[in-house]
Amino acid sequence: MPGANGLAALWKQPRDPSVSTPSPVAALLAAAALVQPGAADGRPWTAASSDPRTLGWMQGAPPPAERVIVFGDPQAFTFPRLRWSVCHTDQLMPTRAVSRGLTPVRPLPRRERTDLDAVRFQPWGASQPMTWGQAFDANFTDGVVVLHGGAVVYERYAGCLGPTGRHAAMSLTKSLVGLLGEMLVAEGVLQADAPVRATIPELAGSAFGDATVRQVLDMTTALDYSEDYADPEAGVWQHAAAGNALPKPSDYSGPRTYFEFLQTVQRKGEQGRAFGYRTVNTDVLGWLISRATGQSLTEVMAERLWSRLGADAGAFFSVDSIGTPFAGGGFNASLRDMARVGQLMLDEGRIGDEQVIPAAVIRGIRAGGERAAFARAGYRQLQGWSYRGMWWVSHDANGTYMARGVHGQSLWIDPAAGVVIARFASHPVAGNADNDATTLPAYQAISRHLQGR
Amino acid sequence: MPGANGLAALWKQPRDPSVSTPSPVAALLAAAALVQPGAADGRPWTAASSDPRTLGWMQGAPPPAERVIVFGDPQAFTFPRLRWSVCHTDQLMPTRAVSRGLTPVRPLPRRERTDLDAVRFQPWGASQPMTWGQAFDANFTDGVVVLHGGAVVYERYAGCLGPTGRHAAMSLTKSLVGLLGEMLVAEGVLQADAPVRATIPELAGSAFGDATVRQVLDMTTALDYSEDYADPEAGVWQHAAAGNALPKPSDYSGPRTYFEFLQTVQRKGEQGRAFGYRTVNTDVLGWLISRATGQSLTEVMAERLWSRLGADAGAFFSVDSIGTPFAGGGFNASLRDMARVGQLMLDEGRIGDEQVIPAAVIRGIRAGGERAAFARAGYRQLQGWSYRGMWWVSHDANGTYMARGVHGQSLWIDPAAGVVIARFASHPVAGNADNDATTLPAYQAISRHLQGR
Repeated sequence: MPGANGLAALWKQPRDPSVSTPSPVAALLAAAALVQPGAADGRPWTAASSDPRTLGWMQGAPPPAERVIVFGDPQAFTFPRLRWSVCHTDQLMPTRAVSRGLTPVRPLPRRERTDLDAVRFQPWGASQPMTWGQAFDANFTDGVVVLHGGAVVYERYAGCLGPTGRHAAMSLTKSLVGLLGEMLVAEGVLQADAPVRATIPELAGSAFGDATVRQVLDMTTALDYSEDYADPEAGVWQHAAAGNALPKPSDYSGPRTYFEFLQTVQRKGEQGRAFGYRTVNTDVLGWLISRATGQSLTEVMAERLWSRLGADAGAFFSVDSIGTPFAGGGFNASLRDMARVGQLMLDEGRIGDEQVIPAAVIRGIRAGGERAAFARAGYRQLQGWSYRGMWWVSHDANGTYMARGVHGQSLWIDPAAGVVIARFASHPVAGNADNDATTLPAYQAISRHLQGR
Repeated sequence: MPGANGLAALWKQPRDPSVSTPSPVAALLAAAALVQPGAADGRPWTAASSDPRTLGWMQGAPPPAERVIVFGDPQAFTFPRLRWSVCHTDQLMPTRAVSRGLTPVRPLPRRERTDLDAVRFQPWGASQPMTWGQAFDANFTDGVVVLHGGAVVYERYAGCLGPTGRHAAMSLTKSLVGLLGEMLVAEGVLQADAPVRATIPELAGSAFGDATVRQVLDMTTALDYSEDYADPEAGVWQHAAAGNALPKPSDYSGPRTYFEFLQTVQRKGEQGRAFGYRTVNTDVLGWLISRATGQSLTEVMAERLWSRLGADAGAFFSVDSIGTPFAGGGFNASLRDMARVGQLMLDEGRIGDEQVIPAAVIRGIRAGGERAAFARAGYRQLQGWSYRGMWWVSHDANGTYMARGVHGQSLWIDPAAGVVIARFASHPVAGNADNDATTLPAYQAISRHLQGR
């Protein structure tokens, strides 16, 4: 864990508030990961010097003692261990499967191009341009897949990831759960304007009780809840402690599950007025989905999405001690399968002849949320954006929208260019403010390049 | 946990020594599961009264407190919780994936028949015959798939399992690891006649040091090691404690991983003389495989077997705190995929045009091990059988051989009849001696029926 000095130094920097919670253990330790540590030789870590294969984490039978990342290890999600751990969530906490079903694998057509690595873009705030190829390492990328017109035009892996591996999706999870939530609203299983307490009476006394399902979906709930990792009293720490599946210390008296924790979150401010990016909203949505359908979130995800993708691999959620999937950030999947989700969004919910998701659901997400509410959250780097159904909507000319997760996870969908970019990463800094400068303009440059502009 | 009286009553009964270790937690608690407990109303449990859906384990968001099976719960693998837990290993301990690869799913042809349920057989020691349909519940079956000529002729699920679920394979794991071991011997990566210490110097001081790889593969090592769950000093308890991934108690001073435990096992008797069914042999084989290939057992399994099956689903192993797969019993997979393995064995290692496993490897297993060595182990119900490469070989007229795991797991391969039977179960009694009487004659009857005899 970093000392108070390290954290203080970090939090003195101007920052973007787009910090989210990855997973129970990760949340506990995100503070550490937020600090850019130095490598053993004192120089800043690079993709090469932090490569988990080079560092030898968990290699050998047994691995050398100093290269073991042990189950329950509070250091597991600190950098540079993070670069191994993001591919091995299932070894580090209990999980729950999301089946790929019994359907055939749907092959991704391949029309690979060699010109993308040389595409140049201007990182925000930098004096020199950078190429797409250079951005791969600059962002500590573990894997990136670019689809154009439904075909793979670029695919590259590094670090702990390969095409068969599965990686922590961090807060991309939220967008997948949001998608399920929007589908259930469209079906009338959930009512957008109904208060949460109508479906979950246990939340009546919490901030969520009189919030509407729509406010949860768009994260405009008014919560007395902080995700400021620098504050030891912040709600995010209690959330993480509640969700940690390891047996609780004998003197622990707090909430013991995600559901118990959510009931403790109190209201502050006016519901629906301002966007506030808080992981607990997605955990409430996961609860709403489970309660309304009578199924686990993993089952809903499998039935409605994962088993209909023609996925290469099953996916999984990390879970708390009673098996509740971490809806706010616990999803893990293969990168190609994440790209398949992006293509499904791009294709307005159709796979072949099957309408897997109602087109209106995707159009609703793509149209975005209230921009005024979003503006009140003060994202300097995402001015003009909005948030809808747990997706980030740019409102640019191409209608681009995204799923975003800490440490550089992203799923970029550019409808006008017909481009999907799925990326998993293990950037030393959790908050995407740190990598957006070499991420968003790079995605935009690739999209425009493929669009022929 | 059952009281000492319950255990004493059990162990006074004559029993078959074919008791194996399922998983770290399961091993810790197999003693409990060995006792046939009564249902709440005092009558013996039946498949119906113990159905996990009826009992409501882990249903609801959250489940009722008295129906929660919590992570780390020492009761998780006691009956009747066992009937839920066998399908949810990943929620109960850390795991490590075995990828299905990126290959297309290979469909299993279907020629379903309705006549099998009525096939009658004579259970051993019973006065009345039983039908195949009745045996399903009598054996607390969670799922069974029968292949004939490569096609599914019968498939049925109950309890916690369906076609997309994954179930603890218990000691079927041994046969899969044994198969990999035999493949590596055939390739010369492992030397059958070399002592284990030649590959794993750390084991030089243990019973395994001067045992040969062949003796490990055929479990004819001479070990001062007991799998008698009734003896609190038995090695199996230390093995389970070492492999348990939960943080160790502060006063714990024993071995902390599988590898550490294996180094403590001492020799007793003459190597190679008698078969002795001891899970630790497979854990040594797993170590041999990892050390010789430089890969995790999960990677070897994925590369050489699971990614070549055209599997529906990825599989996984439970692991100890440092991520070592539990080679002796930690595998979990879908039932159809287990049936695919059986068909691959039946087809002498070919899938389509590809020779996935050398035919000689499978012929070697099928030919069996030393019957005299097996006879010295004193299995009353398996007279005339032998053990080779961690498979049980019947030496009957059809050349039938099996993988067997506690609580009724089995993979039955009848080459002459062209029949594969894959079954997952959650029988209240761990040792297969208790269900063999309604299992082995049932399999034989189905095979002969399909063979037209």
